[in-house]
Amino acid sequence: MVKYNPKNWFGLIFHSYSRQVVKTLTPFLLIMVVYTALITFLIEDYFKLDFHSTTVVHSLLGIVLGLFLVFRVNSAYDRWYEGRKLWGLLLNNSRNLASKLNAMISQENEEDRKFFRELIPAFAFAMKDHLRKGVNIKYLKITDENIKKQLGEKEHIPNFITSLLYQKLNNLLLKSKLTPNQFLVLDKEMKEFSDILGGCERIKNTPIPYSYSMFIKKFIFTYTVTLPLAFISEFHYITIPIVIFVFFILVSVELIAEEIEEPFGGDTNDLPTQELADKIEKNVKELLD
Amino acid sequence: MVKYNPKNWFGLIFHSYSRQVVKTLTPFLLIMVVYTALITFLIEDYFKLDFHSTTVVHSLLGIVLGLFLVFRVNSAYDRWYEGRKLWGLLLNNSRNLASKLNAMISQENEEDRKFFRELIPAFAFAMKDHLRKGVNIKYLKITDENIKKQLGEKEHIPNFITSLLYQKLNNLLLKSKLTPNQFLVLDKEMKEFSDILGGCERIKNTPIPYSYSMFIKKFIFTYTVTLPLAFISEFHYITIPIVIFVFFILVSVELIAEEIEEPFGGDTNDLPTQELADKIEKNVKELLD
Amino acid sequence: MVKYNPKNWFGLIFHSYSRQVVKTLTPFLLIMVVYTALITFLIEDYFKLDFHSTTVVHSLLGIVLGLFLVFRVNSAYDRWYEGRKLWGLLLNNSRNLASKLNAMISQENEEDRKFFRELIPAFAFAMKDHLRKGVNIKYLKITDENIKKQLGEKEHIPNFITSLLYQKLNNLLLKSKLTPNQFLVLDKEMKEFSDILGGCERIKNTPIPYSYSMFIKKFIFTYTVTLPLAFISEFHYITIPIVIFVFFILVSVELIAEEIEEPFGGDTNDLPTQELADKIEKNVKELLD
Amino acid sequence: MVKYNPKNWFGLIFHSYSRQVVKTLTPFLLIMVVYTALITFLIEDYFKLDFHSTTVVHSLLGIVLGLFLVFRVNSAYDRWYEGRKLWGLLLNNSRNLASKLNAMISQENEEDRKFFRELIPAFAFAMKDHLRKGVNIKYLKITDENIKKQLGEKEHIPNFITSLLYQKLNNLLLKSKLTPNQFLVLDKEMKEFSDILGGCERIKNTPIPYSYSMFIKKFIFTYTVTLPLAFISEFHYITIPIVIFVFFILVSVELIAEEIEEPFGGDTNDLPTQELADKIEKNVKELLD
Amino acid sequence: MVKYNPKNWFGLIFHSYSRQVVKTLTPFLLIMVVYTALITFLIEDYFKLDFHSTTVVHSLLGIVLGLFLVFRVNSAYDRWYEGRKLWGLLLNNSRNLASKLNAMISQENEEDRKFFRELIPAFAFAMKDHLRKGVNIKYLKITDENIKKQLGEKEHIPNFITSLLYQKLNNLLLKSKLTPNQFLVLDKEMKEFSDILGGCERIKNTPIPYSYSMFIKKFIFTYTVTLPLAFISEFHYITIPIVIFVFFILVSVELIAEEIEEPFGGDTNDLPTQELADKIEKNVKELLD
Repeated sequence: MVKYNPKNWFGLIFHSYSRQVVKTLTPFLLIMVVYTALITFLIEDYFKLDFHSTTVVHSLLGIVLGLFLVFRVNSAYDRWYEGRKLWGLLLNNSRNLASKLNAMISQENEEDRKFFRELIPAFAFAMKDHLRKGVNIKYLKITDENIKKQLGEKEHIPNFITSLLYQKLNNLLLKSKLTPNQFLVLDKEMKEFSDILGGCERIKNTPIPYSYSMFIKKFIFTYTVTLPLAFISEFHYITIPIVIFVFFILVSVELIAEEIEEPFGGDTNDLPTQELADKIEKNVKELLD
Repeated sequence: MVKYNPKNWFGLIFHSYSRQVVKTLTPFLLIMVVYTALITFLIEDYFKLDFHSTTVVHSLLGIVLGLFLVFRVNSAYDRWYEGRKLWGLLLNNSRNLASKLNAMISQENEEDRKFFRELIPAFAFAMKDHLRKGVNIKYLKITDENIKKQLGEKEHIPNFITSLLYQKLNNLLLKSKLTPNQFLVLDKEMKEFSDILGGCERIKNTPIPYSYSMFIKKFIFTYTVTLPLAFISEFHYITIPIVIFVFFILVSVELIAEEIEEPFGGDTNDLPTQELADKIEKNVKELLD
Repeated sequence: MVKYNPKNWFGLIFHSYSRQVVKTLTPFLLIMVVYTALITFLIEDYFKLDFHSTTVVHSLLGIVLGLFLVFRVNSAYDRWYEGRKLWGLLLNNSRNLASKLNAMISQENEEDRKFFRELIPAFAFAMKDHLRKGVNIKYLKITDENIKKQLGEKEHIPNFITSLLYQKLNNLLLKSKLTPNQFLVLDKEMKEFSDILGGCERIKNTPIPYSYSMFIKKFIFTYTVTLPLAFISEFHYITIPIVIFVFFILVSVELIAEEIEEPFGGDTNDLPTQELADKIEKNVKELLD
Repeated sequence: MVKYNPKNWFGLIFHSYSRQVVKTLTPFLLIMVVYTALITFLIEDYFKLDFHSTTVVHSLLGIVLGLFLVFRVNSAYDRWYEGRKLWGLLLNNSRNLASKLNAMISQENEEDRKFFRELIPAFAFAMKDHLRKGVNIKYLKITDENIKKQLGEKEHIPNFITSLLYQKLNNLLLKSKLTPNQFLVLDKEMKEFSDILGGCERIKNTPIPYSYSMFIKKFIFTYTVTLPLAFISEFHYITIPIVIFVFFILVSVELIAEEIEEPFGGDTNDLPTQELADKIEKNVKELLD
Repeated sequence: MVKYNPKNWFGLIFHSYSRQVVKTLTPFLLIMVVYTALITFLIEDYFKLDFHSTTVVHSLLGIVLGLFLVFRVNSAYDRWYEGRKLWGLLLNNSRNLASKLNAMISQENEEDRKFFRELIPAFAFAMKDHLRKGVNIKYLKITDENIKKQLGEKEHIPNFITSLLYQKLNNLLLKSKLTPNQFLVLDKEMKEFSDILGGCERIKNTPIPYSYSMFIKKFIFTYTVTLPLAFISEFHYITIPIVIFVFFILVSVELIAEEIEEPFGGDTNDLPTQELADKIEKNVKELLD
């Protein structure tokens, strides 16, 4: 995530777009320039057609398309914000669990305290990588070689960590180191860990429906390809900047929506999952030391 | 569900529409071409009417219609996403239940473990088919012939599986194989199974209200049928591509909304319920082995 | 609720509107025809005014009015869907309660089983009628004459059924036929029964605020009454179909919103509460037999 | 709250606006008439300026303003509906609590039954007045003079009633007149009482942000003040009814939003909190008699 | 937060904007005046270009931009309102916890009562400052020097206060001063404290995504910079007020959104967190005295 000052207008307006966006947009813009110029040349100077055009159709459909894009961006933003909420909950929940375990497990029981001190942050780190390229167990700070080996055999690491945490709690209950009601209270936190994981996996694995996504792209395409026809008869070569301007706005919106709706990667707009996992580690350590 | 790369614009724009959509749209488009051509011919060349037309009414109503369609697609999308959320919850919940049962039922008690190992995934498979054509018990991987026979006598299979799971838990409580608080914790998961089932049934059985659906279709119909009148006096035969263009956009949106709002079938845009059920089976097996 | 095939376009477009809508709309449409014709005649042929008109004001206000109507329909739809959700929950909850009671109350205790087998569906039937014209106890399938007499003395029947169910559960707890945790689990289901009832009553008793409803109707009225003035100078008698077309769309939307927002009656678009109550009866019988 | 028949169109359209709205609107409308007439006179007849005007800017900004107003009304409506939901919950919750207490407190224990029979409705009445002008203890039907005196010393009456109810429940638990699980069940209802109170206080005490409210009013003002300039050159004195028409629509919307967003007063559009409190009293009495 | 009368139109319209907004807007407006004047001068009087312009493109894109801004303001308002809800919950929760502790901890146990009487409000004050510039322990009214010292060593003060409260509750449970079910009931309130804190931190730390914010600013910039070109050929120097008018509206909306979306500072539109914390202190004192 880029840290930025939202009130610094000039900085934001003249800031160069992130490389990826430039890479994506430039060829499209060039193609549109050539295409519009060609169409204009053919109609105006080559065939010298007495072309009678209207902007009414494109005005009307432009508003409809605009509505679609605004909703598109907003539903992408909703996903992004849901992802943020889930990670906020994870931070919260990790703190809560640590704070409760601190009160419930006696200071002498260093073994169990260490178990939770290591595995609660490990869940956050594993989840972060699971939502990116996949978990590499080497980077999880777990000192118990036995657990490390077990994790190495599993495919779904964060899932298995939850399972380990749950087994530990159940053992503590059976050994009467936790009262039944303390167990109930901790179970609530545990349930949320797995709900958070499930929510993030859902966001990652569900793009907007195929036909919806295809339709918006086809709509933008058909719209901009026919756009020169609406302006040529009156504006001649000035049609080129007009088409580029409209095209730039429409495609930008779609690109932003695409960027935002996958919030767990390492891109510019993605959520600061690395920082959040670090924060969880620091907080849990402080509470369970 | 079609797996696709949302960033591959060219692929998406020129990708041929799914057969079903083509089948639905082509005759309509042809009818519109013939209709518009006929109207134009009659007014322009046959009766040679001095027809004075306006695009103002269609501009205004076009925006209103556009608003309806955008909301229509978005409420269809909300359903689709709610369906996805429910199946995500099912995956989550199945894992949770298995993970908790694994901690609570001792490794020696192979009989009860097997019961849950088979019936938790069976619920997912039964629900998947229940939301499609109906459940065929043959395809459920249940080895206990007694249970299979019982299922064969019932109409609502997923419902009855929940009931079986609940009876088993209650028995374990009565035999003191579960403590009262463990029972409370497991009950929460069970409740969610039946909430998920109920939610999916609701989505499947509730189309948008009859008069609303009828109104949108009548609006699109009246709008496109009168559309040629707005353009003929100025554009003559060029009216044909204009009308087709607008018609294509409007009908596409309605068709997409119709496709998306029933997310549990086997169509291109439907949810990958088969894959999710397979995943549940694999996960539950790993956890309860 | 009308069962219909949402993909059958022709059927839907040419389907005659339900009688009620026709009855409501026809006189309005006739009045508008006469009114517009009169205005046109007076201005064009009688006073022969050199009337200079504009469509800008009506375009602008038309979009604002369109926005209001779209939001209006959507908030009506939200209510309708909330009603559907609540009835879906009722079905779910009745099944859940029956399934749990089946596991908790022994097969021998036929008396208590019968009590629940009759009263759970009775709640659904009573609620259905309570949301329509009022409950007639004769139609509730309750064999216990004592309960029937008690119900006869009360005004709010579904409320009193919940109270009876709750008393029974409390008695079972006091007689130790239910463990404290089983009681807790069943209490959750009971709470939802009364939440569902409360939600449906709220939807039924709360129309949109008076001034909002009045404003939308005044807006539509003022808009259509002044609409002829915008078109006369250019379109003369063709103003009549234009005004009727716009008027038809605007009033239809408002009528649909009115129909949808009260979903518990016996009208065409209303929820199938009768079918749902029947389904509850069948399901609960199967589970508690 | 005005009870009205939403299907009686003529009644609603020609119904005279509530006095308050008329009082507010009339002077504004008169000022606008004078202002527009003056501007028109000055430009057209006094200075005889060759004024070249455009309606494009006002069309565009009119749509933006319309969007703001629609959202404004809808967010006001959401508040109103949230208030309605909270009072619906209160009715529900009071019934539930009474129904549960009826099952849990024996018929002989008239003292405790009377305590709840009086204090549950007292909470509703106190909350109603607390959200209006403040509570007058005289109107609360409490017979216990001791409690009345205690209430007289407190500032926040509904809050203190919840506290009294909670103390009573805790005492019943300590005296073993309630089992621990019955206490848990009742605690849930109590928590909702205070959540309902908190929600209503929030709605009452939080107008939309200052700068947002100020902006919308400034936007309407600037828009209507400059509106004559857009029409004068073409419509001369007909500008006056056009401006008044647009102004009337815009200001009406804002006034409706203002009326709706404070739903707890005694105005025409406000919620029927008096009736609801009466209903709670009647219901609780029936259940706890 | 500014207290204002939303029905005092004149006061609101002519009220001078808060200094900050004026400071931000004035230079922008001046630059736009100079820029538009220069462009007009160059095209009209210096190069005397026969410039053929159109307002269609800016009309269309203006509506799209308007849609974005309306959604932008509304999502900012949603954040603001969520912040308000969380603080309302905090008030509610603090009261609830105090009210429950009052019933559960005997009047003689002054030590524990004092602990909660001081630390519950301290949480609110610490949270308020934590969301602004950071907590200064001097301003927290805690008399126990030991606790004060502990707080001084921690970074995240509100978090640590929750931890202290939780430890105290756990100790009371272990010393049997609280029954297990009382502990369960209090745990729910404690969980909400940390959820409220987490929610507020999320709102504070998550601006809208970088690329979205940048896009809106770029869109406004490009739009207003090209706006003069659309009006010059027809309106000459009158283009200047037109451009300024549009520019003023667009930038105002964005500025309001920016102001509203960070609701925890000390600015004009920010939430009255100081007053709410004072209220919590007063209420808790009254209840636990």
